[in-house]
Amino acid sequence: MTLILALDFGGTKLAAATVHAGSKQWLGYERRLSPANANADTDLEIMRSVINSLLKGAKPEAIGVSFGGPVDATTGKVRLSHHVLGWENVPLRDLLEEEFGVPAYVDNDANVAALGEYRFGAGQGYDSLFYMTVSTGVGGGWILNGKPWRGAEGMAGEIGHMVVDPAGSVCLCGKRGCVERLASGPYIAQDVREVLRNEPPRRKERQGRRGEVLRGLVGDNLELITGQIVSEAAIAGDNLAQEILYRASWALGVGIGNVANLINPQLFVLGGGVMKAGEDFWQVLRRVARETALPEVNFEIVSAALGDDAPLWGAVALAEDILG
Amino acid sequence: MTLILALDFGGTKLAAATVHAGSKQWLGYERRLSPANANADTDLEIMRSVINSLLKGAKPEAIGVSFGGPVDATTGKVRLSHHVLGWENVPLRDLLEEEFGVPAYVDNDANVAALGEYRFGAGQGYDSLFYMTVSTGVGGGWILNGKPWRGAEGMAGEIGHMVVDPAGSVCLCGKRGCVERLASGPYIAQDVREVLRNEPPRRKERQGRRGEVLRGLVGDNLELITGQIVSEAAIAGDNLAQEILYRASWALGVGIGNVANLINPQLFVLGGGVMKAGEDFWQVLRRVARETALPEVNFEIVSAALGDDAPLWGAVALAEDILG
Repeated sequence: MTLILALDFGGTKLAAATVHAGSKQWLGYERRLSPANANADTDLEIMRSVINSLLKGAKPEAIGVSFGGPVDATTGKVRLSHHVLGWENVPLRDLLEEEFGVPAYVDNDANVAALGEYRFGAGQGYDSLFYMTVSTGVGGGWILNGKPWRGAEGMAGEIGHMVVDPAGSVCLCGKRGCVERLASGPYIAQDVREVLRNEPPRRKERQGRRGEVLRGLVGDNLELITGQIVSEAAIAGDNLAQEILYRASWALGVGIGNVANLINPQLFVLGGGVMKAGEDFWQVLRRVARETALPEVNFEIVSAALGDDAPLWGAVALAEDILG
Repeated sequence: MTLILALDFGGTKLAAATVHAGSKQWLGYERRLSPANANADTDLEIMRSVINSLLKGAKPEAIGVSFGGPVDATTGKVRLSHHVLGWENVPLRDLLEEEFGVPAYVDNDANVAALGEYRFGAGQGYDSLFYMTVSTGVGGGWILNGKPWRGAEGMAGEIGHMVVDPAGSVCLCGKRGCVERLASGPYIAQDVREVLRNEPPRRKERQGRRGEVLRGLVGDNLELITGQIVSEAAIAGDNLAQEILYRASWALGVGIGNVANLINPQLFVLGGGVMKAGEDFWQVLRRVARETALPEVNFEIVSAALGDDAPLWGAVALAEDILG
């Protein structure tokens, strides 16, 4: 049986797994957090020890790798990581091929997760789909004609920085109202915090429950607010949380509708923490996407099936493709 | 030598040409306007007479067809025309194959023009590009991996109805501030007309030349204003014309930057009457596209090379592909 090694350099976490080609069950599986002051060397060191503990001397036939940052998939060279220092121009594929003496393939996490969902998850049976992850950032990856579409220089899928509201707030990318600025977890939390800071707590009745559930959940310590807490507050009826999440789901819906008009894929697969914001969130997103797309443009929007393991399963698919 | 017949059902005009496969020069070429009350039958009748006058009894080996409206390229069936009545569900490919006894291929004009520019025009030597036509409407067509990408149901390329300003004016499509609402010729003319209607002519000096050149060009008959006249007025220094065109080029730039982030093609090829609006127009469009795309996303933006003949040349490419 053909042994495959799948690696996921996720930015804040590192994961590795082994599987027999053709199987849908992990043989071995390990996940670790990156240390606070991680750099490329410490990431590689931790990954090496995880790999050794998984392989126990066995030799894989191929290695598939998901990397959390831009990668030139044709050369397997990492361009950089936005989270971890020292990854500039690291020839990750060559390093792994040399160290393990087997072929490897490296691609960025959104592309790899898209491939994972396509081959093993929510995208099985379709042949064109757009995978989106909505969490710390908003990223995406394409499957067109049953194959990853990476773009001319491997940069395709960047829906996060599509401008949907030119009058919106400024994003780190320098633009106003891009999808990531409106719909990523940290920005959702930041916007909620800012409103609460500018509003004295517990105002009169007219204000209703706006912000009260939120304040309650974090004991008035606004620093503790996260995207997840905003979701919880919204589900518990907090109007402010609902407003900010409405805007996020609206932004995602506009983005998805625009993408549908442009590329007309069969399916959108949505994953990431923010997508756990509840039924209302999904409903608004679906409605706005439908309104934004032309009436003749059909598509489905479904939830990702593989959760945090999508990049690892995509890495398995990359390795299987090497083996042919 | 292999004779090819290329047809262009363009909505307001009909064109046909013949060429020897592999040649870049027309053997015969004819172009006619649709009559005012055209329907599918009159279009087909006119096209038949054009074809007969071109072929003079000779028989082509294959027929390529560009149609100005949504088409199911896999069956060659026209879905409808937005300009001409009676085209609903017309099996155009089958009609032509039966009548001429040779294989035919039918696709919508944006896809076909993209293929034309790719094979014979500004896109030669590239293998991923997005073609856009900015005129009465705003449409687009994809070449990915050297082949047309039509989408799951042939609807890909609809950049015209990408929303770029959710606070903008309402388009016929029902949405606010889509690219076509801001950048198509008729809407540019309409917006200029509306401002002029609401402003008394020849106001004080503070108003400067705003609208004056425009009024001069049409002898104060605002109905005569077209996109082309707005361009002329802008080049002659009319501030109002410049403002409205600035917004149009801004909308196109945002759309192009968003598309670059999403698909990362090598090249954008821009054609259509509105693209003749002068150097300033191109400059703004290029700058905004560059600012909208992520810094790592590279692309070129060039002018279409084939003008009105892009769909005919694309039809030639379709026919050549039938012949293998």
